[in-house]
Amino acid sequence: MDIQTLTKQLKDLQRRLHVFGHAMGVLEYDAETAAPRQSEAGRGETVGLLSQLRYEELTSEGTRELLESALAQREALDPQTAREAEELHRDFKKTVCIPKEEVVAYTVLVNRASSVWHQAKENNDFASFRPCLEELVETSARFAGYQDSGRHPYDVMLDDFEPGLDRGYLDDYFGRLRKELVPLIHAVSSATQPDTGWLRGSYPAAGQEKLAKRVMAMMRVDESRCALGRSEHPFTTNFNNRDVRITTHYYEDNLLSSLYSVVHEGGHALYELGVADELQYGCLGGGVSMGVHESQSRLCENMLGRSLPFMEALLPVLEESFPGRFRNVTPQQLYRAVNMSIPSLIRTEADELTYSMHIMVRYELEKAMFDGSLKVAELPYAWSELYGKYLGVRPEKDSEGVLQDVHWSGGSFGYFPSYSIGSAYAAQFYDAMAKDVKIDEALREGDFTPINAWLDDRIHRHGGMLKPKELMLAATGKPFDASHYTEYLKKKYVALYQL
Amino acid sequence: MDIQTLTKQLKDLQRRLHVFGHAMGVLEYDAETAAPRQSEAGRGETVGLLSQLRYEELTSEGTRELLESALAQREALDPQTAREAEELHRDFKKTVCIPKEEVVAYTVLVNRASSVWHQAKENNDFASFRPCLEELVETSARFAGYQDSGRHPYDVMLDDFEPGLDRGYLDDYFGRLRKELVPLIHAVSSATQPDTGWLRGSYPAAGQEKLAKRVMAMMRVDESRCALGRSEHPFTTNFNNRDVRITTHYYEDNLLSSLYSVVHEGGHALYELGVADELQYGCLGGGVSMGVHESQSRLCENMLGRSLPFMEALLPVLEESFPGRFRNVTPQQLYRAVNMSIPSLIRTEADELTYSMHIMVRYELEKAMFDGSLKVAELPYAWSELYGKYLGVRPEKDSEGVLQDVHWSGGSFGYFPSYSIGSAYAAQFYDAMAKDVKIDEALREGDFTPINAWLDDRIHRHGGMLKPKELMLAATGKPFDASHYTEYLKKKYVALYQL
Repeated sequence: MDIQTLTKQLKDLQRRLHVFGHAMGVLEYDAETAAPRQSEAGRGETVGLLSQLRYEELTSEGTRELLESALAQREALDPQTAREAEELHRDFKKTVCIPKEEVVAYTVLVNRASSVWHQAKENNDFASFRPCLEELVETSARFAGYQDSGRHPYDVMLDDFEPGLDRGYLDDYFGRLRKELVPLIHAVSSATQPDTGWLRGSYPAAGQEKLAKRVMAMMRVDESRCALGRSEHPFTTNFNNRDVRITTHYYEDNLLSSLYSVVHEGGHALYELGVADELQYGCLGGGVSMGVHESQSRLCENMLGRSLPFMEALLPVLEESFPGRFRNVTPQQLYRAVNMSIPSLIRTEADELTYSMHIMVRYELEKAMFDGSLKVAELPYAWSELYGKYLGVRPEKDSEGVLQDVHWSGGSFGYFPSYSIGSAYAAQFYDAMAKDVKIDEALREGDFTPINAWLDDRIHRHGGMLKPKELMLAATGKPFDASHYTEYLKKKYVALYQL
Repeated sequence: MDIQTLTKQLKDLQRRLHVFGHAMGVLEYDAETAAPRQSEAGRGETVGLLSQLRYEELTSEGTRELLESALAQREALDPQTAREAEELHRDFKKTVCIPKEEVVAYTVLVNRASSVWHQAKENNDFASFRPCLEELVETSARFAGYQDSGRHPYDVMLDDFEPGLDRGYLDDYFGRLRKELVPLIHAVSSATQPDTGWLRGSYPAAGQEKLAKRVMAMMRVDESRCALGRSEHPFTTNFNNRDVRITTHYYEDNLLSSLYSVVHEGGHALYELGVADELQYGCLGGGVSMGVHESQSRLCENMLGRSLPFMEALLPVLEESFPGRFRNVTPQQLYRAVNMSIPSLIRTEADELTYSMHIMVRYELEKAMFDGSLKVAELPYAWSELYGKYLGVRPEKDSEGVLQDVHWSGGSFGYFPSYSIGSAYAAQFYDAMAKDVKIDEALREGDFTPINAWLDDRIHRHGGMLKPKELMLAATGKPFDASHYTEYLKKKYVALYQL
């Protein structure tokens, strides 16, 4: 096959795979934001068939021949197509090794697990979820074995969410965090907390929505390409760089919850909106990994969105959205309020300092489940022990403990660590950016333009072209180093709590 | 092939067709309710490929053989499967006769026409839409010729939206309406209008949404199976009887607009929610025709929702949603306000009495376009002439005239008459139901339960099993007779305006 035909066929294959992904993605977005409760069964049917069609497309003999031909002629392909062929082949290998019946059975299991978990969480009943979870763990381990029988199954899973990650790497990483952060967390929890009584009260959803849109505008998240929706839990989804969605949940008694979820999801959105046009509709047309994605959201949420200079831009906008409520608040007061650190039970509500401890608990539990040293039945107890050890708090019920996250019910094991790694990436990106960009000035003016320009150039536009490690090196000139993260947290929290 | 295998394959085919329809439907719903403005191109790509996959599934050699085999063994199939095979074959024949390139070209044309029409309407510029419309008329006529070269193309189109409808039938129908209603419309427009100043003012969207949900509850539209969304124009869409969506648009200066759109779309929703479980995911698993669908929405909106007894249930709910605003309003005052009849230019805002005249204008224009007696270029003038003749008003600009409706830009010719026929069906259904159900009592109590029970039994549960004419006969004991409709309107409006 000549190179032109080969290239065209590779692009066509990606377009078709993209179409199935797009349709399934919209069905899922709709499920979270708009669909009536009983719509689940019908959607399951449709998503099931679409994923089967995608599976067939990806694993067909034609695809195999095409990809083998592409890898054989790799040198003759243009760099983007060569990298696409590599990624497609990775996806092909990962998928084709799992028998189709098992893929279908797994889809059915995940569907079921989702509603069982919802019910279990609502009823605070881990026992009812346990059999599902056992089956999910067992299936995930089996699939990892199909994919790479020479590696530990949990390493296979970790690499799936963040290429290059494994247990050795994470043991070292979390070991450093534990050593640096646990003492700091203990010191902060015995320090005096600021008075935030002025923040209490009721904030109507309509005002919060207006505020959210103002904040998106400050971040330069283009509304004509990124919609803001409502869902139970905030999330971002993307179909291409002209169609990104972020969602939030307005709690009328908690202004900060929706506000910072919008800044967080806005960071994810900026990444997707910035991916270059020429990568769209192909397998490199989105963020490269979960870890790098989370770096962009947590950079926006914490390092930029919870900074003192940003408080100067945010205060007038808050006052505009809720007239009279912020008239006498100073930037320093707001800064202290949005940076309160208190060890707590729920990961998604955790502050910046304690966040990675929540992840560490999950990492240790996942690792132990997949090396066989921890049974699913023992999870609630082990969960409580680790929370006690790292955070000094223990859940009174499983709905606030082991049942709190959606991930395991979806079969996503090895996902959590990328949340913490992402925060650490963010600190290194920030330090590199600070050399080139007047960050504080941009934040004070409430205009992310110069910040986005740097991020676009170093990170966003590349989409999946550079692997996470390559991207880190290219963007910051150095390999990943977690000390940027620990130093940042120590400096910030020592000053905040005057330790 | 044995009957069991044949039946299973027919069901499998329908499931696959349903899945493509479901995915495309959700993409469209999302486009109207949630997607950002620039998402159009990506969605076009995806809908294009999905509709191609559906086309290939429906027109494959395998499908042809399956359907021929099914029709040959029709007698041995169970009645539902036999009827499904008949409908599938109708769809197959209608589709396979059009060459694939022409289907694809048509999809592209309709996509383009949609944005050209939007722009033309905004700019009040018919000339810019004219070439598109000419191409759409020409293509539709050509396709109708492929589908049935022995019939007049407009008859083929009419039959597509409402099986059994043709020009002869409609000439007679509209002739009767003209004779009975035009004099009444003229009499009403010179009668004294009620004072509705008390209804003016601002109604915040949040209150209107609360009201909409209360009204849905009174109608017994199950919220766990039917979601309420927001869009530019209200519409209903359905995926199965556990997943129906209705939308509305809240105008803060117009309470009745959203209120009655919810009652109207709620009527469509009740139909879809009532279709029997055993018909789901198959080609009979929805309302049987546009006309019967419209009968259900207009029955709810006008005959039930604008009745005097319903005002007694509605008033306290209005007062609850907008405290203090309706305290001194009587049911009679509200009844007169929601039934004002004034000849106007915009179909979607037309009152019950004048509505069918709007349809008649469109019917006569479509008929003339397809028998060649009217050129597209002459439409604006002909439009104005007919509005002057039947309604006594003429548009000052095309955006309020020939450019107002979306239908033609989507290639839907022959669709409009079903709106009027539906209103007439509704009157006959109402008269039959009134013999069995204490309608006024149910309305006065604000509880549609007994009404829905009758409609479910006679109409909803049958889905597409009975063709419109069969359904009318089975439900009311008589063939369709438009005099129910004209008598209803005459009686109601003579009393309202004391003529």
